[in-house]
This record gives sequence, structure tokens and C-alpha cells, in this order.
Amino acid sequence: MKKISRRVFNSTFGLGLGLMVTKPKACFSEVKKGKKLGIALVGLGTYSEYELAPSLQETDYCYLAGIVTGTPKKEKIWADKYKIPKENIYNYDNFDAIATNDAIDIVYVVLPNAMHAEFCIRAAKAGKHVICEKPMAVSVQECDDIIDACKTAGVKLSVGYRLHSEPYTQEIMRLVREKTYGAVRYVSADAAYFSRTDPDQWRLNKALSGGGALMNMGVYAIQSAIYGTGQNPISVTAQEFSTRPEYFKDTDETITAQFEFPNGAIGNIFTSHNTNINRLFTSFDKGWVELNPANNYGPLSGRTSDGKELKYPHERQQKLQMDDFSKHILKGTPNIVPGEMGKRDMIIVAAIYQSIKEGGKKIVLDLGSMGIL
Amino acid sequence: MKKISRRVFNSTFGLGLGLMVTKPKACFSEVKKGKKLGIALVGLGTYSEYELAPSLQETDYCYLAGIVTGTPKKEKIWADKYKIPKENIYNYDNFDAIATNDAIDIVYVVLPNAMHAEFCIRAAKAGKHVICEKPMAVSVQECDDIIDACKTAGVKLSVGYRLHSEPYTQEIMRLVREKTYGAVRYVSADAAYFSRTDPDQWRLNKALSGGGALMNMGVYAIQSAIYGTGQNPISVTAQEFSTRPEYFKDTDETITAQFEFPNGAIGNIFTSHNTNINRLFTSFDKGWVELNPANNYGPLSGRTSDGKELKYPHERQQKLQMDDFSKHILKGTPNIVPGEMGKRDMIIVAAIYQSIKEGGKKIVLDLGSMGIL
Repeated sequence: MKKISRRVFNSTFGLGLGLMVTKPKACFSEVKKGKKLGIALVGLGTYSEYELAPSLQETDYCYLAGIVTGTPKKEKIWADKYKIPKENIYNYDNFDAIATNDAIDIVYVVLPNAMHAEFCIRAAKAGKHVICEKPMAVSVQECDDIIDACKTAGVKLSVGYRLHSEPYTQEIMRLVREKTYGAVRYVSADAAYFSRTDPDQWRLNKALSGGGALMNMGVYAIQSAIYGTGQNPISVTAQEFSTRPEYFKDTDETITAQFEFPNGAIGNIFTSHNTNINRLFTSFDKGWVELNPANNYGPLSGRTSDGKELKYPHERQQKLQMDDFSKHILKGTPNIVPGEMGKRDMIIVAAIYQSIKEGGKKIVLDLGSMGIL
Repeated sequence: MKKISRRVFNSTFGLGLGLMVTKPKACFSEVKKGKKLGIALVGLGTYSEYELAPSLQETDYCYLAGIVTGTPKKEKIWADKYKIPKENIYNYDNFDAIATNDAIDIVYVVLPNAMHAEFCIRAAKAGKHVICEKPMAVSVQECDDIIDACKTAGVKLSVGYRLHSEPYTQEIMRLVREKTYGAVRYVSADAAYFSRTDPDQWRLNKALSGGGALMNMGVYAIQSAIYGTGQNPISVTAQEFSTRPEYFKDTDETITAQFEFPNGAIGNIFTSHNTNINRLFTSFDKGWVELNPANNYGPLSGRTSDGKELKYPHERQQKLQMDDFSKHILKGTPNIVPGEMGKRDMIIVAAIYQSIKEGGKKIVLDLGSMGIL
């Protein structure tokens, strides 16, 4: 297992996305009385700070019970803000002691990609259920290692695919599944944001991220293409583009890829760290459906060829996601985002990088046997 | 010059698009008194019947003065319907005698693609201005032959790019040119329709069409990508997909292609004869603009990231197009769609086919020196 310097990690974590933090609506002692599962966040970067922790104030089946951080000053800030007792606060060295802490049911690993495998496996070995933030890891082998560790430990595993739990994406999946507009023929998915302010961020450091736009936003585009067709791709071709090598020293800036699906539908994806785009369009024999935005934190927006506007009450996607996984554990509902889904997407990511390396060659995929959609 | 059997052509021409024909609002003797230019349509297939002839009842600077057809029974139908005098009716054999007919100022060649060059060159030699329907020809060499013939004859030449004259597309071009939303970073253009009813149509016969989806709808996607960036691409990669080889025996069914533009923007196009899609999306530093539909006969529809709806009164695009060219001839306004634009797009088409043939290899383009946008 590759070890990443925590100093490098701590100095580079975070994208500076500025969103308002909601006020906690339930303190630790209150939620402890209920049947909510206790979640410990591992890694207190911007995503934990601005998305997961606020979402955990709104969840019905889980709550923020603990934190794991390599930054001592964050311990007090978070403890005060979220009423986290001292015994539920860990650093990366004493993290394994979480095994004996009954207040923690789920460990959510929100570290840079290259650290996912190590901490997911340590969490599993500690007997905790695991949520691994996307992308699941930096290689298919690491995904297998995580899946195996969870199986061995008898714990549940999910991946941080928040969109799988939110209603706009679920409506796309329903329209595809029920063939409301007939058979699907084409899906176009663009997922990109413009990175330009922080060349030292971990996402631009391949040792920490495992890759650039594709590993970050590209995973959304891959997921969108599968949402939009209801199928796993059977082949992929891909291309890479670079315009700012001085900024993107180490990672891919822009990638396009094309998918073939079993029913003949074609997928066309675009992902980039060089522009802001956020779309899913899927075309059927008798119409089309699109989301724009399709993959940000919402509210999303959608419309159909017959003039319908998709409109759902907005809830934090991460709230829905963590509740879905908690219900899986508490009530035995299906795990809608199992670890195998993260592994499947990492197989696709690896095939895209391989196609690029081989000059755009078609890479055949065999994902059907995974049984994951 | 490759000769196409007129029997094959006559038996296969037409797609069966059923649109209502408007009633002529001006008869031949009326318009003859004005300063309108006389247009002769060469080839009376569905596009002439349902689009060009009706549009020529609404044009301000030109009118339907003559026809050239290989189908004798069409002569009387068109003559009666549009009050076309006998002396302005030609067939493919006596067509060259049009040289002595002062009633005909412009010849609009609406034949299958492989016949464009022959008839455009014959029209130029007859001293007539020429509109060549898109795609301009089936090779770059043929485009050059047409351009050279028109130069030698001292006649004007345009290509049937109706969108260049219509307000939605012009607004996209303006927003790009004026950088209303900042610099352009990405353009996505999909142009496709589902062909499934007539395997014998000329568009599916390579000898007549020169190619499939790319030659037909792909040219719109190429144009859209250029509208959406205000630049000519500097490289192209491309992929071909096939799911119904029994129907698309001879021509490409689906093609994706990626463009690089001089400023670093990326283009991602999709064209197909296997689904209905009609979109242009262009993303800038500070927003996006899209048309959907973007390339059908209208009314088009558009919107922007800041919530604006693009809305213009609908006029027949072909009316605007033929009036623009006629104004160019009558008043010396710029020829906004010169033959070189058709040639440029044929260079891009050829590069796309070449990239596909070479397994997706990047083909470098040098279109900057053409001075065409």
C-alpha cells in the first residue's frame, strides 16, 4: 500500500469551495438516544466541512459521531461546533483504536484518492462499515483490496455517489428503465469545472489524486452515461487534450471518451478541469431528457422533449446518500451503491487512460458479469 | 467528373419529409417586373419541393424562375403550380442551354452530393451564379473544381448553409465574437436523425452521397462547432460506430469527432443516422448558451446560463439564405457563405474519415489561412 505523506496531504487538501455551513440541529447527546448510526469522518477538508458535516445535521438514520483528522487545531473547532466528545476524536496514528469505540458504526473516508484504500481497509479491519468517497481508489487492484477487506471483516461498503440517491438522477434512471421515451440511442455527459487558483492542491498532484479531471469530474460523466442508458459500456475510446501544462503539470486537464453500450447506444463524454460544465442528455427513439446542472450539489434542473420540467424539493444529496446507506445497514434495504460500483467505474477509468495511451484505440470492456448498474 | 445514372438518382431521390407547401404569393409575371433575381432549381426532390420552392414565394430579392428536372411529369406539375414558363424548364440534357436564358440569374443545385460538382460547373460555364446545396461535394478536389469554375466564369458561388442566415445561429456567433460570456472553452454539437424507412434512398448509397451521417447531418455539427467557437479547428480525432450494418450497407451510421481550436477550446461532435438529435451547446468562462433544436428547419429554440430565452420571429431559413446571396449579387453585400466555406468543411469531413481509417489518429488541420469562418 502506497503511503502518502500527511504533511503533503494537509498542506494541499481542499479546493476552497465556499458554501455556507448550516447550524447543527441536533447535538450529540440527543441523537445518541435514537437508533441513528454514528458516522466518523476521516479527513476534514472542504467536502467534509461544507457538505458532509452539514448534511449529517439533517440525516434521519445517521449522525456525525466522530472525526479523524491530521490537523490538531481542527479537533477543537469541530468538537465545539458539533459537540463531538473527546473519545470520538482520532488522528491518523491512533485511528485503529476506533475498533473499540461503539459510538462509531460507519467510517466515511474523505481523504485524497490515493489514501482511500489504506484507510478503508483500516476501517474495515476495525470492524466499521465503510463509505469510500469517489473515486473509490487510484487503481482497480485497490478497489479489490477494499472490497475484500470489507468482506473479510463482514462490514458493509459503499462509495460516495451522492447522485444515486437524489431524485433528478433517479428520475432519469426510471425513464430509461421504463422506456418512457422508447429505447435509448445516445447519451452525452459533460462534467467539468474550471481549476485555476491553486496549482498546489492535491487534486493536481498525481501521487495523491491518481489522475486529473477524469478521476475527479470524469467519474460523474461515466456515472451519467450509465444512468442515461441503464447499461454498462462494452467498449471505450478516449482522447486527452492539454492547453495549460504549466498549471496541470502532473494530471490530465481534459478528456473525451466514447462508449458503446450493449443495445447499440453510443455515449459521448467530456470531462475537464478547464471549464465549468455540468450536463446529462439522453436521447431515445421518442424523445430526450436532460439535466443541467446534472452533477453539482444542486438544486439540479431537468427537462424533457415533451416540455416537462423536472422539479423536486431540494435536499442535501449527501444527506440522502448517507441515509440510504444507513438504512441498508439498519433495515436491510439494498445497498444501492456497493463497492463493486466504484470498482466498475475504476475499470472504466483505467480503460480510458489505456485508450489514450494507445492513441485512441478501442478498449473492449466486460462489465456485464459484475451485475452492477 | 464521375457521372451518376439519372435513373438511379430519380428512383432514389428524396427522404419523404412531409411538410405543407405554402401557396405562391407572387406569380412569375409579377416578380419579373421587379429587380428580383431569377433562380432555377436543379433537382426537384423533397428539399426543393417542400423547402426551397415555398421559400422562394417569400423571398424579397429572388424568385423561382425556372426548374431543371430529369422527371418529365414534374415539369407540368411545377409549371402549373408556380407559373413557370415553358422556356425556363430544362432537363439534364439540355441544361447547358440555360446560358442564353436571361430570366435565370442563379442556379441552385439540389442534386445528390456526387452530382453537385458536375452541375455547379455546368451552371458556372453557362454564366450563372451558383448555389450548391450542402455538403458542397464528395471531395475537396471537387470543391476546388467548383470554386475554380466559378472564378473562371466570373460568377458568384455560395453553399446551402441556411443556418448562417438565421437569427438564432447569428446570435450564437455574436455572443462568441463579442465574448459576452467570456472566452469559449468547449462546444458540443449533435446533429442526427433516425433513418429507418427507406434503405434505397440516395443518402445511403455512397456513390451518390459520398458518405453517410457525416456527409449529411455531420456537416451541421461541424458548422455548429465553428459557430460555437468562432474558430476553425486545428486538429481532429474521430470514431465510427455501427449497429445496423444491414440497413447502412454502404455509408457511415454514427460518427463522433473531437476538435481542438486555436484558443484551446475543445469541440465534441456527434452525428448519426440512427437517432434524432439536434443540439448546439457552447461553454464560456462565464456561462453557456445552447440551441435545441439547433439545425432543423425551425422554429429553433435557445437559452443561456443566465436564464435568457432566445426568441426570434420565425421565417423560413431558406428564404433568408437565398435573399442573403441575392443581396450579395444585387447590392455587393458580403457573401456570408462563400464556396470556400463549403470547401473548408469538406476538408474537415475528409480529416474525420481519415482519422477513423487510421484508428482515431489525430489529424492536424491548417484552415487558418483560408480566412473563412
